[in-house]
Amino acid sequence: MLQLDHLQEQDSRSRLIAAAIRLIHAESYSAVGVQAICEAAGVKKGSFYHFFDSKQALVIAALGEAWRHHRAHILDPSFTPELTPRQRIEAMFARVYEVHTAIKDQTGHVLGCPFGNLAAEASTLDEPIRDRVLQAFAEWTVIIESAIFEALDSGELDQTLSAGTTATSLLSTLQGAILMAKVANDTSCLPAIGHEAVATLWGGVAD
Amino acid sequence: MLQLDHLQEQDSRSRLIAAAIRLIHAESYSAVGVQAICEAAGVKKGSFYHFFDSKQALVIAALGEAWRHHRAHILDPSFTPELTPRQRIEAMFARVYEVHTAIKDQTGHVLGCPFGNLAAEASTLDEPIRDRVLQAFAEWTVIIESAIFEALDSGELDQTLSAGTTATSLLSTLQGAILMAKVANDTSCLPAIGHEAVATLWGGVAD
Repeated sequence: MLQLDHLQEQDSRSRLIAAAIRLIHAESYSAVGVQAICEAAGVKKGSFYHFFDSKQALVIAALGEAWRHHRAHILDPSFTPELTPRQRIEAMFARVYEVHTAIKDQTGHVLGCPFGNLAAEASTLDEPIRDRVLQAFAEWTVIIESAIFEALDSGELDQTLSAGTTATSLLSTLQGAILMAKVANDTSCLPAIGHEAVATLWGGVAD
Repeated sequence: MLQLDHLQEQDSRSRLIAAAIRLIHAESYSAVGVQAICEAAGVKKGSFYHFFDSKQALVIAALGEAWRHHRAHILDPSFTPELTPRQRIEAMFARVYEVHTAIKDQTGHVLGCPFGNLAAEASTLDEPIRDRVLQAFAEWTVIIESAIFEALDSGELDQTLSAGTTATSLLSTLQGAILMAKVANDTSCLPAIGHEAVATLWGGVAD
């Protein structure tokens, strides 16, 4: 019985996290309240504070879960040793395009990057959230940087490039491209921007 | 006397616009209400609806004013025929860096791009605001594109590049770089990302 109670608690907590990710991604951090998250999760508002001290604490847990999902579905399958460094960057842009296009098809809206959205909306309002998004961007940059290091080592990239700056630039271009797609409510700019980012770094010749 | 009344009305309207730009830039669209904007502007809340139908209508007017300011202080001095196309793009990145660094020095925070922030926060919540930001980004892209066309005509850029995609990519990289600066609360990434964007397009040789 104790074990079942524990499972049910885990389930309520997981449902709150899933609802927070879904609602805040579709709307915004400020626009979504604890009440709406509880309703979407099917959890009584009175129980909320048994799991989380605040909306902020829930969103930080949600960012951790969103990051694990992002790694598993976008980054890990893109940054695999079976692909060349160039193909890994191309795969990242292609997967981001597929995910945002699927969300547009389902909801009618390009919702943007959950991390980029929170970075833009909450960085000046909420220090712990800024810090958690910064951590996600730092990890993301290191993953890109590992591919750039490999391409520098093999001599396929211009040796005067800094791996760190190149990785940060690629993540900036990707984040900016997702923002362009969101404001246009149209993901079609993403493949062209991804292709150009790779082509200007590696040269126009196909891999 | 009528003329003075008119001037005072103009003044209240301008103060509401200036307060909306300042507060929403520092916080967010959802976080700032009409009451706070009126207080910051020194305008009675009862008078607000004499000038604007809604917070949305004020923010659309504020975006128009912010765009005029952005053109006058960042884009027009950067995209001048006295500079080469490459120098114009470099000047845009340099001015954006200066502006955001000055804001950080004044407020303690990198506040991000007023247009990019609203694109990320409000695109799925508020169609007229999404539309107004999209218009600003479209005008911004055309200004960058004119420099890219010139560089393609003179043969200094790879002729296989599309001017439209290159301009959208540069604006994406700039928007993403400002977002990185905001989430790190540190503008130091901006010059390096700007330098790399220009160097990978034009080649590493100094202009």
